[in-house]
Amino acid sequence: MHETATLSTQTHGTQQALPDQLLLALKNMLEDRCSTSMAIRERHGSDESSYDPMLPQAVVFAQTTEEVAAIVRLCNYHQVAIIPYGAGTSLEGHVLALRGGVCLDLSQMNKMVAVHAEDLTATVQAGVTRKQLNLEIKDCGLFFPIDPGADASIGGMAATRASGTNAVRYGTMRENVLALTVVTADGSIIKTGTRAKKSSAGYDLTRVFVGSEGTLGIITEITVKLYPLPEAISAAVCSFSNTTDAVNTVIQTIQMGVPVARVEYLDENGVRAINAYDKLNLPEKPLLLFEFHGSAHGVQEQAELVQEIAAEHRGGDFEWASRPEDRSRLWAARHNAYFALLQMRPGARSISTDCCVPISRLAECINDTQLDCERQQLIYSIIGHVGDGNFHVLMMIDPHDPLDVAKAEGVNSRMVTRAIAMDGTCTGEHGVGLHKMDFLIEEHGSGAIRMMRTLKQAFDPNNIMNPGKIISWDAPNE
Amino acid sequence: MHETATLSTQTHGTQQALPDQLLLALKNMLEDRCSTSMAIRERHGSDESSYDPMLPQAVVFAQTTEEVAAIVRLCNYHQVAIIPYGAGTSLEGHVLALRGGVCLDLSQMNKMVAVHAEDLTATVQAGVTRKQLNLEIKDCGLFFPIDPGADASIGGMAATRASGTNAVRYGTMRENVLALTVVTADGSIIKTGTRAKKSSAGYDLTRVFVGSEGTLGIITEITVKLYPLPEAISAAVCSFSNTTDAVNTVIQTIQMGVPVARVEYLDENGVRAINAYDKLNLPEKPLLLFEFHGSAHGVQEQAELVQEIAAEHRGGDFEWASRPEDRSRLWAARHNAYFALLQMRPGARSISTDCCVPISRLAECINDTQLDCERQQLIYSIIGHVGDGNFHVLMMIDPHDPLDVAKAEGVNSRMVTRAIAMDGTCTGEHGVGLHKMDFLIEEHGSGAIRMMRTLKQAFDPNNIMNPGKIISWDAPNE
Repeated sequence: MHETATLSTQTHGTQQALPDQLLLALKNMLEDRCSTSMAIRERHGSDESSYDPMLPQAVVFAQTTEEVAAIVRLCNYHQVAIIPYGAGTSLEGHVLALRGGVCLDLSQMNKMVAVHAEDLTATVQAGVTRKQLNLEIKDCGLFFPIDPGADASIGGMAATRASGTNAVRYGTMRENVLALTVVTADGSIIKTGTRAKKSSAGYDLTRVFVGSEGTLGIITEITVKLYPLPEAISAAVCSFSNTTDAVNTVIQTIQMGVPVARVEYLDENGVRAINAYDKLNLPEKPLLLFEFHGSAHGVQEQAELVQEIAAEHRGGDFEWASRPEDRSRLWAARHNAYFALLQMRPGARSISTDCCVPISRLAECINDTQLDCERQQLIYSIIGHVGDGNFHVLMMIDPHDPLDVAKAEGVNSRMVTRAIAMDGTCTGEHGVGLHKMDFLIEEHGSGAIRMMRTLKQAFDPNNIMNPGKIISWDAPNE
Repeated sequence: MHETATLSTQTHGTQQALPDQLLLALKNMLEDRCSTSMAIRERHGSDESSYDPMLPQAVVFAQTTEEVAAIVRLCNYHQVAIIPYGAGTSLEGHVLALRGGVCLDLSQMNKMVAVHAEDLTATVQAGVTRKQLNLEIKDCGLFFPIDPGADASIGGMAATRASGTNAVRYGTMRENVLALTVVTADGSIIKTGTRAKKSSAGYDLTRVFVGSEGTLGIITEITVKLYPLPEAISAAVCSFSNTTDAVNTVIQTIQMGVPVARVEYLDENGVRAINAYDKLNLPEKPLLLFEFHGSAHGVQEQAELVQEIAAEHRGGDFEWASRPEDRSRLWAARHNAYFALLQMRPGARSISTDCCVPISRLAECINDTQLDCERQQLIYSIIGHVGDGNFHVLMMIDPHDPLDVAKAEGVNSRMVTRAIAMDGTCTGEHGVGLHKMDFLIEEHGSGAIRMMRTLKQAFDPNNIMNPGKIISWDAPNE
């Protein structure tokens, strides 16, 4: 029960009172874009995690980087916590106001700053969502591949180093952010990079901030890489009688270097949930969803090769989704899996955890985790971006039933320990937030954690930037 | 003349005397692996740049991470500078001992730690060179794509965020390092990551150290990604009557998303030099060298598409190097270009600079730089990894002729200003070293430089880690 300990320590801290002077200054600057209404505070004090809400005392809506800088300078002067908020789709409690403070909502920063189609780059404000970005660039024949399940904001995705179904081919936010505009803890505005595809010009500030979860500075603009829409796309599903055969198909596909664009695993429970939620008729057995990108011939070649590999592992026939609308439906269903699973236990919340292991260990890690879930008699599903060695466990629990929580946290804890023992990581893409801080030491060791704390202290000496995330608020994380 | 100013300030600093106690302790620990002989100090106080040697007072040869840690603890106690040294192939003065100190040679740390062929990863000690690594993994059917011209050490390549000819397809050290073992400035040993392909578990310490040029800590082990050897490889050269046509061919190839594995540009001077040095008979005109990786059919398809693009831009016929030995000869010639060009002016040294711009601006940037070189009547060549928007200018000069140096530094300075104005970077892959510190402000702005200084101070409070590189020794870099 690593988390319980951490959470109790942190959440029981005193909520700071917001200085009147600060609130007055914010209201003067932002007028009705500074709110203390309970409804707005409640919406901003919760996310898609299973945590109870933790409310900020005020919510401010910024529209420009300069406004963000002014807000940060005010909060820094008063030493009040700032919690950046994008689309509120975090699964690990990133946006919860542990001890109050000011929630900085960036959703009104939703402008495209520039599309440089000729350079395959776009610069967007932090509140632009991934679907909005893709709509804006579609006419240029380009797309942005990173797709966490939710329609998250690009700023939030950069802050949590998000990935999704296409990462196996196109990488994660780590590889696809070229440059950031960041407001630092003292309210300065910096640019961390250029639009050059590569650079050796000094420290990689871009990747210092990517994945920093709002704890080192606030990302206000993001320059990302874009990709030409593939000449041909095809998608298929393939069922297996057991997890091992499905996952071994993936392992071999990756080891052979087949450049699959997407390969997703859903267990039986996941398939059953999306069948019900999305009115599909997929066989209720372990399933792989593939997508292939390339030239018409290249796509066919990849598909044939993967079909052979699947057949060797006793996979069923490939069912093709050749029309774009069939593909969209399939991928929408995959992205809805989280909501579909919630329907499996009405009124429940989901503890959604993830880990990532070297590809050769994936079948073992999934099988052992599945066995653990079964033993605990949980309502759960394991689904994942298996081409990266990354999978998710979604457990439908009653967050107010201590036994339920203990069961789920036990599974989570053992999964993380298992992944780390395989030289993997405690989170492939969800981030640390409130939920995985104590696993960081297990994964990185106390020396590396000390360097992380050094970085946090140097960049945010007053501990005002989303405090209590990644690095615990008071007690050293070691 | 940005650099001249910086250099004179820095190099004229007093050389610290090495405390007897430190030297004694190092000799006790390392015996004959601690040397103060002039020959060894001279070899370690120079690199492939045009700088005069700057000698360390002692050179130590470490064989394990624990030894590195012990050496760092001693130097930290005595507040003596440590300059890490891999293969000595820097082009920007990274290994020069500005004011003396201890040079830490890692070339005897040349062991393979682990090859996990089934996960497409390898862990190596810092002194393993890229050619050695590729020899070691060849029998597994794998390769490591990053190939700076020289046979650099993997540790040095990580420290300078190196790339090379394959980066257009496979990325640079930024994308291909999974984890590092680092000795920090206080002599602690940390691990920055795992073998998982992706992670959202806290700050990206791996990429804090990749590209930090030994100024934040000493990289002693590196875990890198490996790739399956492609089923098919083909290479070809194609000549053009002018630079614009050649570079526009590249721009369109990239914009269309053709997954070329390599695309290199050589100007007429470059071709002439490698013809002479490598006994080739390439037409002495602007040249593109292509390599295609994939399935047999995929390679053919890519090649046909690029041939069409080249033909639209008035390119000559593709000359194919289909036999492995022909390809090896061609790429060896490309990698030897630096040495070939030195032969164009016997006794000269090369000022080798590089920059990187968004792909659509590449033809303009190269043309203007070429014109500048011609105006200055330099003996020079422009060659580059043009698929990334990255190119090099090699200028053969007499480093003791002030006029020669001024001409070359003028070209360099104007090229950097040009690249930055195009939203590019002052160095795509050579690094900052001594030569490009003053351009960092021009590129990043004073706010970002302040954050880089904050990072340096936090990680290396006594300024003992390769001091005077990236961040200037005394004067704030702003």
